[in-house]
Amino acid sequence: MKNYHINLLAILSLFVFIFSCQFTTNTKDSETIILEYNFLESWNEGATKTSIQDFVKRTTTENSADFIPEKDRIAVFDNDGTLWGEQPYYFQLAYAIDFVKKEAPNHPEWSKDPIFQAAIVGDMKGLMGGGEKGLIELVMKSHAGMTEDQFEAAVRNWLSTSRHPDTGRPYDEMIFQPMLELLDFLRAHDYKVFIVSGGGIDFLRVWAEEAYGIPPYHVVGSSIKATYQELNGKMEIVKIPELNFIDDKSGKPVGIHQHIGKKPIIAVGNSDGDFEMLEYTTQLPGLRLGLLIHHTDSVREYAYDSLSHIGRLRIGLTEGPSRGWVVVDMAKDWNTIYPISKDQ
Amino acid sequence: MKNYHINLLAILSLFVFIFSCQFTTNTKDSETIILEYNFLESWNEGATKTSIQDFVKRTTTENSADFIPEKDRIAVFDNDGTLWGEQPYYFQLAYAIDFVKKEAPNHPEWSKDPIFQAAIVGDMKGLMGGGEKGLIELVMKSHAGMTEDQFEAAVRNWLSTSRHPDTGRPYDEMIFQPMLELLDFLRAHDYKVFIVSGGGIDFLRVWAEEAYGIPPYHVVGSSIKATYQELNGKMEIVKIPELNFIDDKSGKPVGIHQHIGKKPIIAVGNSDGDFEMLEYTTQLPGLRLGLLIHHTDSVREYAYDSLSHIGRLRIGLTEGPSRGWVVVDMAKDWNTIYPISKDQ
Repeated sequence: MKNYHINLLAILSLFVFIFSCQFTTNTKDSETIILEYNFLESWNEGATKTSIQDFVKRTTTENSADFIPEKDRIAVFDNDGTLWGEQPYYFQLAYAIDFVKKEAPNHPEWSKDPIFQAAIVGDMKGLMGGGEKGLIELVMKSHAGMTEDQFEAAVRNWLSTSRHPDTGRPYDEMIFQPMLELLDFLRAHDYKVFIVSGGGIDFLRVWAEEAYGIPPYHVVGSSIKATYQELNGKMEIVKIPELNFIDDKSGKPVGIHQHIGKKPIIAVGNSDGDFEMLEYTTQLPGLRLGLLIHHTDSVREYAYDSLSHIGRLRIGLTEGPSRGWVVVDMAKDWNTIYPISKDQ
Repeated sequence: MKNYHINLLAILSLFVFIFSCQFTTNTKDSETIILEYNFLESWNEGATKTSIQDFVKRTTTENSADFIPEKDRIAVFDNDGTLWGEQPYYFQLAYAIDFVKKEAPNHPEWSKDPIFQAAIVGDMKGLMGGGEKGLIELVMKSHAGMTEDQFEAAVRNWLSTSRHPDTGRPYDEMIFQPMLELLDFLRAHDYKVFIVSGGGIDFLRVWAEEAYGIPPYHVVGSSIKATYQELNGKMEIVKIPELNFIDDKSGKPVGIHQHIGKKPIIAVGNSDGDFEMLEYTTQLPGLRLGLLIHHTDSVREYAYDSLSHIGRLRIGLTEGPSRGWVVVDMAKDWNTIYPISKDQ
């Protein structure tokens, strides 16, 4: 009887022991499996997907000749046209137009300004005719005097009430599923991911954490100046109508230098506004990745490149390949465009 | 014999099982023990230490009324006089003087500039007489035309060859051991820690990761402008002699807004240059922590406050307590000042 007891105990503890070992091993195994197979599900098999996987493997495998220490694994992503859509016009422009229309009754002085007039009557040609400078002026002037909290509330309110004109989706669901998977894939390999966008830094910060898991302090963008001043008995950050920084073209490497302070290992963009960012990243010695998202899918998204007013991609396509940049063909390389909508 | 075998197996597997349990439990236990008891070793028991521990416990314990979600746990630290020393003069000024002396033979035009002249002959009174503006001018003009890599190499070289005039330590070992422990304590409770310094952002970024474990993209500081341009056949970030941002006084909340984009929960400083940063942080509703390091230790460090040219602390001491800010008395609250030197 005594022996029987001990045998039972032996079997029991063996089971528990084996189970506890299994448990430990399983955790590690499943982690490994996820890292190797479960990422990038919306990317079709092919040269593009393989080149991304190979790059990450080579830069994150210890003893690899191309190994990069965790602390230096920096990946920078453009936003408009790279992480989310940008057609038929930049989404922040849609926000600014809606804001100006809503606020116009309180600002009779706006009616004398041609840029504001174009916004109020929805004259897109007139707006685009003013070029980048006109758009920046619109955003700058319309938001002057707002506190950081007021601006955040205005953007949040707009996101929850507005829908994209073609898809009917909320704008923060016009994000690209394959890019969400790429962000996750990189983070799982200890890359820090940053947004480096021509768009407004404060506009992006309102929703980027929820949409992409990218916190405000990993967002670089264009900005107007701000002051710290008393307002209604409280000290506030208040936006002022003075340009601070344009984070586009050669501004992107400068923005990276100012905000990140480390040279990236991976740069991802979609337009010639990203050329300098990819150039800055990939000219460095050592293995580097430049990735260009080419909008080729007129059925599921939009097809545009060298002739487009928005997101023009010309130099990237002609010079990119000779620089070793990988061009992602959306129609061919992606089996899904958008994530499942929360509305559905 | 068979029974004996099984008994042995029983005992063996029990041992292994117990050991494996122990191993798992120990890891968790020791983690918990470290979190609760082993941090802040260089802080003497007392009201200051208790108030820090209580604050962190209340803001990081789920179901606490003061619980703050991980993503919002932002702590900002001044650098000069808070994380490292600043006497007998700002360490970056020591760097700039050494740099100007070394480079002067290549810049005959400097001899006509009184600020450069004061630096070259080591006339500290003349230098300080120019005030903050003079010092910024010195740093700006002396570094114009340098690439980001050249600047980093110059700072690294200076750090490895220079010693503090009073202690003989390398400057990057003039950091405060109790503050290193505070940074660790906060990080272990999922606070993200940032430097928000009046000092130069690029100067700080060279050594802050090694000294404090704070990566370049968590450093906010003063800066001059930079361009992205061709230099010797390579595209480079080049510093230009134009002021970009002064991250001091009311500039600190603006710097936090621009770089971090979230309001801090904890702000730590030591001078009136940090007043606005602590004000901005602690005026928010909800539990917030403002901490002021008061240099009271003339034996182990330096004793100075309201009359000091460098690190003047006057308003903080008079207004701080009524705002609920905690004043750290270095002589009383810290049992150690500096970490063990790597030289020793």
